[in-house]
Amino acid sequence: MSVIDDVKKMAGAAKGASRVLALASLKSKDRALTRAAEIIKKSSGSIVRENNKDVKSAKSKRMPKAFIDRLTLNPSRIGGMISSLKKIAELSDVVGRVDNMHRMPNGLWIGKERVPIGVIGIVYESRPNVTVDCAALCVKSGNSVILRGGSESINSNIALFKCLKQAFKEAGLPEGAVNIITHTGREAVRALIRMKGLVDLVIPRGGESLINEVSRYSKVPVIRHYKGICHVYVDESADLNMAEKIAINAKVQRPGVCNAMETLLVHKEIAARFLPSLIKKLKDAGCEIRGCDVTRHIVKGIKKASEKDWRTEYLDLILSIKVVSDISEAIEHINKFGSSHSEAIVTEDYGNANRFLKEIDSACVYVNASTRFTDGGEFGMGAEIGISTDRLHARGPMGLEELTTYKYIILGDGQVRK
Amino acid sequence: MSVIDDVKKMAGAAKGASRVLALASLKSKDRALTRAAEIIKKSSGSIVRENNKDVKSAKSKRMPKAFIDRLTLNPSRIGGMISSLKKIAELSDVVGRVDNMHRMPNGLWIGKERVPIGVIGIVYESRPNVTVDCAALCVKSGNSVILRGGSESINSNIALFKCLKQAFKEAGLPEGAVNIITHTGREAVRALIRMKGLVDLVIPRGGESLINEVSRYSKVPVIRHYKGICHVYVDESADLNMAEKIAINAKVQRPGVCNAMETLLVHKEIAARFLPSLIKKLKDAGCEIRGCDVTRHIVKGIKKASEKDWRTEYLDLILSIKVVSDISEAIEHINKFGSSHSEAIVTEDYGNANRFLKEIDSACVYVNASTRFTDGGEFGMGAEIGISTDRLHARGPMGLEELTTYKYIILGDGQVRK
Repeated sequence: MSVIDDVKKMAGAAKGASRVLALASLKSKDRALTRAAEIIKKSSGSIVRENNKDVKSAKSKRMPKAFIDRLTLNPSRIGGMISSLKKIAELSDVVGRVDNMHRMPNGLWIGKERVPIGVIGIVYESRPNVTVDCAALCVKSGNSVILRGGSESINSNIALFKCLKQAFKEAGLPEGAVNIITHTGREAVRALIRMKGLVDLVIPRGGESLINEVSRYSKVPVIRHYKGICHVYVDESADLNMAEKIAINAKVQRPGVCNAMETLLVHKEIAARFLPSLIKKLKDAGCEIRGCDVTRHIVKGIKKASEKDWRTEYLDLILSIKVVSDISEAIEHINKFGSSHSEAIVTEDYGNANRFLKEIDSACVYVNASTRFTDGGEFGMGAEIGISTDRLHARGPMGLEELTTYKYIILGDGQVRK
Repeated sequence: MSVIDDVKKMAGAAKGASRVLALASLKSKDRALTRAAEIIKKSSGSIVRENNKDVKSAKSKRMPKAFIDRLTLNPSRIGGMISSLKKIAELSDVVGRVDNMHRMPNGLWIGKERVPIGVIGIVYESRPNVTVDCAALCVKSGNSVILRGGSESINSNIALFKCLKQAFKEAGLPEGAVNIITHTGREAVRALIRMKGLVDLVIPRGGESLINEVSRYSKVPVIRHYKGICHVYVDESADLNMAEKIAINAKVQRPGVCNAMETLLVHKEIAARFLPSLIKKLKDAGCEIRGCDVTRHIVKGIKKASEKDWRTEYLDLILSIKVVSDISEAIEHINKFGSSHSEAIVTEDYGNANRFLKEIDSACVYVNASTRFTDGGEFGMGAEIGISTDRLHARGPMGLEELTTYKYIILGDGQVRK
């Protein structure tokens, strides 16, 4: 069979399973997740062995160090997967929740019931933990899932998938609820994203080129987890101690993630007081600074930031700094160069806080807190399948609720339309 | 300038305007709508004159009667537009509403604020009232709109657009909030649906070929208003009087719309009691019946329904009838042949009502009421921009809320991530 036929067959099975899974009890879904945790624990030796093959092959291909790091599984990371499965099993169900049930004057009761989306395709790079997290979140929300991980993690993914498959079977969930595409070529992804009518949603997780590839060719809806060029703006009225803590946290605590700060904007009136100490601390933490002319006038020996810097997601210990003349310039800069991900203002001025919240149109807009909180767990969702930088269906961290859609249920006693 | 350049320029202006419009006060948006109602009223003579040109040209092209009917404006239809504008002006604002504001253990307040989607393109056939309704709903929900109506209604649409434009200007809304594409060629639609980054959503309204064309080539998200193959299932336990009223209403009250019934499913135990009287009344109302073998055995002289009938949206006084052996067969039939639009069960059995609500995965699932209620107005939304048959972002009738998305707002007092 061709790759396309293979994927089509899998998508058809997933679609059929999705109708059964949509009606599955919370108990059986949770049972599948806790069993998966147990089986993965029991199989951790063989999972690590399979992972070793992937790591060895990636090293022989001289893949970057960060890539190898994300690919590598060890007992602690397997423990992380297990606790993630348990955590998702403990979350309450969103399927079947009815919102806004209301009675119309003609006596009809009308409400919106949350239902699974159907079949969700996840296309991701070589991070084996995504295999487990995404399968767990999809199944908990009643969706069939088709996983397509990066080719360099294929042995790890298959090992993990076997555990999931067994657990789902033991819990009585339909065959076809969880699927993995083992074709490592690009044509398998192309086939998946063209399965209109069988696949209801594709979520690409990974770098820019993967996301562009999926977006360009997809015939099914896509929700993107795209780049984060996040800003912190330190207002004239800011508590400068607080601002320093937030700026350092947003940049340094984990620079390689999408919700880390890439550009710091500082009001001109406090720049001379604020920047020297902050820049020293950032440099001490190993951070490279690129500044506008005013920044470079205040603190000597800083590389000049070009317009390209304002548009760059470093994902690294690099920070661009711009001194702005007021909050208007800060908002303008963010709306022009930002990626509508996460932005924060540090201010003690009520009006400016209000204005920032209103005029910044990013998925997450903060007052007096670090952008690093943009995360399903930190928002109280328990877990997330990604952070949407799209505008439709879901924005920001996506949890179980965002993996559902709704149908209207209407209860009458014989009403007809006049 | 080429068509593409024209559309691009317009989309750029709409995008710029959308940022201003998103922050516009409810008062100025409502002022624009009430002024539009006044100006349309004052201009009704010239609107009808422009519409006459369209109607004359459509007649000379021998367009179908139903087409000419939808195209034609008269004082009563203009009155309908005016009252629609007033009604939308009276609706409360959804922009700025914050849902699920909650406090996390670390003291962060997190909530979801409803914000406009941005720029919405509406591609529709030759129905001038859509010009006014869609512009009004988009602007009320804070979105810029780009209208592209059918070429046969171009003079009517331009006349109506001029009224809208003037009203919006008088209300102080930004130039570029409301736009019309006057290029009547297909390439203008193609250009619009490729304006990724400038246009945030396209809603095609019209026949199958229009929707397929937009779906196939769009580079921006699309929400479809597709066909409705709606079912009524009369259960063994149904109140047969109620069932007859609902079946007649669902078929006859307005057969040309998407929420009218196309197939009636009847439990075998009551078919012989139920069908003769119903079929007589439907025939008296001018309805053609096509039945399965059992139906044709119960009532003579009925055309045989083929599998093609189960898949057909007649949009006309034609009904296909199938006798089923139980609710399982009814649910199976609907999930196989339906278009996931609107389905109803008529039953006095609690368990069967429950099962139908659970197992039918259509946008609107009814117990003991006519499918004809699938309509924004009837659901209490005030007005609708269409009925989504897609699964994502919005399902079923789409009102103001469905024309918005959300952003997270997060209020802290110095929180940083551990």
